[in-house]
Amino acid sequence: MIKAHVHVTLKAGILDPQGRAIRRSLENQGFTLVNNVRVGKFLEIELQEQDPAQADAQLKAMCDTLLANPIIEEYHYELERPPEPISGQGS
Amino acid sequence: MIKAHVHVTLKAGILDPQGRAIRRSLENQGFTLVNNVRVGKFLEIELQEQDPAQADAQLKAMCDTLLANPIIEEYHYELERPPEPISGQGS
Repeated sequence: MIKAHVHVTLKAGILDPQGRAIRRSLENQGFTLVNNVRVGKFLEIELQEQDPAQADAQLKAMCDTLLANPIIEEYHYELERPPEPISGQGS
Repeated sequence: MIKAHVHVTLKAGILDPQGRAIRRSLENQGFTLVNNVRVGKFLEIELQEQDPAQADAQLKAMCDTLLANPIIEEYHYELERPPEPISGQGS
């Protein structure tokens, strides 16, 4: 099994009303040094897949078709390497 | 200015209906190897602060009081180091 961490964030220049609301709330609570807040999604995805190249291709397709809106969002992901299988090697 | 990356995720064991809905949608689109999806928030916060220790304390307070719900969520954050100031040093 391969685990992936996906970040989906608004592209630079796209307005972020949720981030603005959080900044305002923080300010109201006394956190006056907060300059800017941007909010995105963070997804942990477990794939029943052993091959990192396959997993990579699947994740790219998932992000392009469902997880991110390519018009306003961008994404990046990292794959957690599966633990190395125990293997003997003769010489 | 210090930039922070905050991850807010559901604690293990807490049901994640949004993640389940995404898994179902992925499955319907042919991504049948997806085992599990967990959804969290990802926040980029810019602080008008130079001192990493101060920024750290502020962020912890923000997470504890507003950004995360401590009953069902957990958080972690990393601070981006501010660029080193240009300084001359005599010997």
